[in-house]
Amino acid sequence: MENKRAVVSLGHNALGYTTAEQWDAVKHTAKALADLAEEGYALAITHSNGPQVSMIHKAMTELRRIYPDYSPAAMCVCSAMSEGYVGYDIQNSLKSELLSRGISRNVATVLTQVTVDPYDDAFYHPSKVIGRHMTAEEAAMEERKGNYTKEDPGKGYLRVVATPEPLEIVEIDAIRLLFDAGMIVIAAGGGGIPVIEQNCVLKGASAVIEKDSIASLLAKKLDADRLIILTGVDCVKKNFGKEDEEDIHDMSVAEAEKLLSEGQFGEGTMKPKIEAAIDFLSSKKDAEVLITGIGSIEDAIAGRIGTRLRNNAV
Amino acid sequence: MENKRAVVSLGHNALGYTTAEQWDAVKHTAKALADLAEEGYALAITHSNGPQVSMIHKAMTELRRIYPDYSPAAMCVCSAMSEGYVGYDIQNSLKSELLSRGISRNVATVLTQVTVDPYDDAFYHPSKVIGRHMTAEEAAMEERKGNYTKEDPGKGYLRVVATPEPLEIVEIDAIRLLFDAGMIVIAAGGGGIPVIEQNCVLKGASAVIEKDSIASLLAKKLDADRLIILTGVDCVKKNFGKEDEEDIHDMSVAEAEKLLSEGQFGEGTMKPKIEAAIDFLSSKKDAEVLITGIGSIEDAIAGRIGTRLRNNAV
Repeated sequence: MENKRAVVSLGHNALGYTTAEQWDAVKHTAKALADLAEEGYALAITHSNGPQVSMIHKAMTELRRIYPDYSPAAMCVCSAMSEGYVGYDIQNSLKSELLSRGISRNVATVLTQVTVDPYDDAFYHPSKVIGRHMTAEEAAMEERKGNYTKEDPGKGYLRVVATPEPLEIVEIDAIRLLFDAGMIVIAAGGGGIPVIEQNCVLKGASAVIEKDSIASLLAKKLDADRLIILTGVDCVKKNFGKEDEEDIHDMSVAEAEKLLSEGQFGEGTMKPKIEAAIDFLSSKKDAEVLITGIGSIEDAIAGRIGTRLRNNAV
Repeated sequence: MENKRAVVSLGHNALGYTTAEQWDAVKHTAKALADLAEEGYALAITHSNGPQVSMIHKAMTELRRIYPDYSPAAMCVCSAMSEGYVGYDIQNSLKSELLSRGISRNVATVLTQVTVDPYDDAFYHPSKVIGRHMTAEEAAMEERKGNYTKEDPGKGYLRVVATPEPLEIVEIDAIRLLFDAGMIVIAAGGGGIPVIEQNCVLKGASAVIEKDSIASLLAKKLDADRLIILTGVDCVKKNFGKEDEEDIHDMSVAEAEKLLSEGQFGEGTMKPKIEAAIDFLSSKKDAEVLITGIGSIEDAIAGRIGTRLRNNAV
């Protein structure tokens, strides 16, 4: 592959759940990313932040129980904190891994805001669970504040936020400048901080952007040749979990669309990845999407494992 | 002034203490920064994070009381979160302010690590107070974990961390690239995340770097012409708080050193600013340091207020 402009999307399993888990997980992730750097890839990295933003949201809520003088932390603020937290761990571990291999490439995290449409249908059907279980009274109070909650039968209530589609990456010029200069850029972590453009003001939105959607948008904006989605499985499966389960090694967009329409891919797991892949491939004829596991990246790049999606079947 | 490469250092009063206060304060700060942008300055911005990192540290501590499964958040992790939190608020407000003035300049926050010397004397005399008051038992537990505490008579115990001198800014190439391209860069917030270089590993340090020290280092590394320190007073005073208090409008390095030696400048307030100013001026013959209040920036740039430090007196 001649052109090696790649966007890498890291899922939960690349990061873990607690600060200690993340610290360990990111060291493994850094090895996979350094492998790509050694292969000569220009790299932009984006990552999920579900457990991280949840942890921060819980912490900021508990803070106010003990110290009521603190004002509440909006979702956008928790999201910004999570970009700092995860970005630091990745940039630190990756820089260390590169140094240990004698590679002096720069790694930097750009704090990223992403615009969303206030009329996005997702705002009317918030579905992403955030934070800890609440009592009915606490849930009612959240609802009065304009937030949404849903019942988790037998366990209490959970706050839910919307997952609108990303429109524009506010800091894209900065990200592109670093990427084009050969630096490894970590950007739009956790989907980026969602903001709504109101005249000249960028207003933080009570929402979370899905990592797969932003990965596709970032790959398009950076004119990437490859979108590499690192997840919990080595490759995409047909009839996942059934007796006739089958690995998919190559898939055209037409095939992917057919399988999507058959409901082959799990909601909230593989389906958004396949949709993001199709969306990215629509922007560039000879682009490629690679879906594989974090530990399989070398084999996947060499074509021995993983699922490749292209506009036309091989 | 021909060359307009400036580093701006924002103090506590530019940011406030709680999320709500910060949100309001940053809007005013954004106006001052936009004024500088309109004057044609290339801008890199750094900021304090004392109240912010303290808030986050408290929140992460309370989180573990309720959810003991979470692992502790190291100081470097809290610091990274604070860079995300403060960086987002500044970049969001400044971008909005610029848009409202019809200026389309890019603003981006680069998450920054800064190396410190593990043998820095500060590690043997930690003095920076972090977090909430603890009981004697809790303090003893912190000490057993290798952390330092000090008694706050009548109120309990406080955790203290070291404030080592910054050596190198790990992400300086990324910061410089954006700065040189005319983008407004927010970097090394809260002094940056302190790391110790151990062979190839950048190990997060239990420390905080003083904002004034990093502002000087950043200004030197970016070959800035001006270091603008925005603080709580309109200008530096001689005999501060006394009957014969006197504004200082211009000061040479020699004069500043003389006043320093007389103990004219407050420990932890004006003294570190003057020291940072002298340090920066030592790097560039015709450079200038401007110390003024956040609301006085326009008048200060025009020479009507504020304190100017130069290598040679005017």
